[in-house]
Amino acid sequence: KVIWTVLVTILGYASSLPVGDDSLCAAEELAKYRIIFTGKWSQTAFPKQYPLYRPPAQWSSLLGVTHSSDYSMWKKNEYASNGVRDFAEKGEAWVLMKEIEEAGEKIQSVHGIFSAPAISSGTGQTSTELEVHPRHPLVSFVVRIVPSPDWFVGIDSLNLCEGDRWMDEVSVDLFPYDAGTDSGFTFSSPNFATIPQDTVTEITCSSPSHPANSFYYPKLKILPPIAQVTMVKIKKSQLGLSAPFINLPAKSNEVIDSVS
Amino acid sequence: KVIWTVLVTILGYASSLPVGDDSLCAAEELAKYRIIFTGKWSQTAFPKQYPLYRPPAQWSSLLGVTHSSDYSMWKKNEYASNGVRDFAEKGEAWVLMKEIEEAGEKIQSVHGIFSAPAISSGTGQTSTELEVHPRHPLVSFVVRIVPSPDWFVGIDSLNLCEGDRWMDEVSVDLFPYDAGTDSGFTFSSPNFATIPQDTVTEITCSSPSHPANSFYYPKLKILPPIAQVTMVKIKKSQLGLSAPFINLPAKSNEVIDSVS
Repeated sequence: KVIWTVLVTILGYASSLPVGDDSLCAAEELAKYRIIFTGKWSQTAFPKQYPLYRPPAQWSSLLGVTHSSDYSMWKKNEYASNGVRDFAEKGEAWVLMKEIEEAGEKIQSVHGIFSAPAISSGTGQTSTELEVHPRHPLVSFVVRIVPSPDWFVGIDSLNLCEGDRWMDEVSVDLFPYDAGTDSGFTFSSPNFATIPQDTVTEITCSSPSHPANSFYYPKLKILPPIAQVTMVKIKKSQLGLSAPFINLPAKSNEVIDSVS
Repeated sequence: KVIWTVLVTILGYASSLPVGDDSLCAAEELAKYRIIFTGKWSQTAFPKQYPLYRPPAQWSSLLGVTHSSDYSMWKKNEYASNGVRDFAEKGEAWVLMKEIEEAGEKIQSVHGIFSAPAISSGTGQTSTELEVHPRHPLVSFVVRIVPSPDWFVGIDSLNLCEGDRWMDEVSVDLFPYDAGTDSGFTFSSPNFATIPQDTVTEITCSSPSHPANSFYYPKLKILPPIAQVTMVKIKKSQLGLSAPFINLPAKSNEVIDSVS
């Protein structure tokens, strides 16, 4: 009986509100975060077919959005949008930016867009700021793995709101995904469109289960994280003219040295 | 005598205020702009050695800053900073971001940093928002030409303040610059450090004056613009949740078609 009561309460609640737990965010104000993306794609951690030339291993620009649960940038086991396909295959952001813009205009499901510069090697960092809102507390972003057929890392709808307050810091390990739009098997495979398009899938050390795959490491149980993202809330006392520059970590290489 | 009076007035004024005309900005509030960067690097306009493969012609992330005249991101005929060198040679933004951060912290000469995603072809667009302040009304940015030794396009200290108001729209044609740090002559030259480092110079159709240079077109009087940037003030009525998405132009390809 207790279980039923709880279930009914949840269902009743869910049906009377927009879908998604972001509708429960009771924090009162906007919050700003510094987001720091760290590439950990080293030849030591990922020796197989590690790209050294034309181009060497690197990361595209980071493109992200803060939004409500009415918007989804990408989702595991669902089909990638045209914008995510262009970004994952070519690092081309325009169509994805337009998709986000339309979601912002039509259904008010988007708060803001943010981007951070590309990283010219497999290990390194980039950073920018983002802003969340109680009605738009979710963060999603994508970074293309370069070179690759259509592989990327990212976050899907991470909620920065915790009840009536904003989280102070969140760190997440990132693993590679396949956008399901190009059937290449290795970092430098030629373009070969997947028809019909497949869904977004996580790439693991055993899946796709084929020795030719660049991330196939049959002796491993789990891939090491290929990247990491950290979001740190910017304190109000730090806001002001120099806010965009607070909390940038020390020199890229130093940080990398300390984690490796 | 009149001349002397004017001179004395200017000198007196200059010595009592921070150097630079941005100190004259009497606009009262912050202003937000949408900045749209358009690549015009087509094979038609720049047929010589146009890069088609590994990598094809494209543009790096855009990295920019709003600042006072106490900060300079880069300047023609002056030496590039380490940060600008890394960015112009490799598209690596981290050191440049740290330089900007330090200028913001130490001498309060910086208002904010902004970046826009890379463009995966020579023609195409990218966009983001920026914010200026009466004490920091200048805009500078760089975008690396890919592939190239150390070539970039950009803006140096464009003042968006016009007396007591903010300009509504500014458009500027962009031409290639050489960061003076790599002596490569063509888009795909191997790395070859310039020692001692040279200053930042504009690349024209006749300079460097050598037939091997990728931009050497002896029959032209002036190169066609390789890119263009437009900054449009975002009206207050447009500010709000969807502000970051206002004014994105139509689909990238359509715009390109209409200008070519």
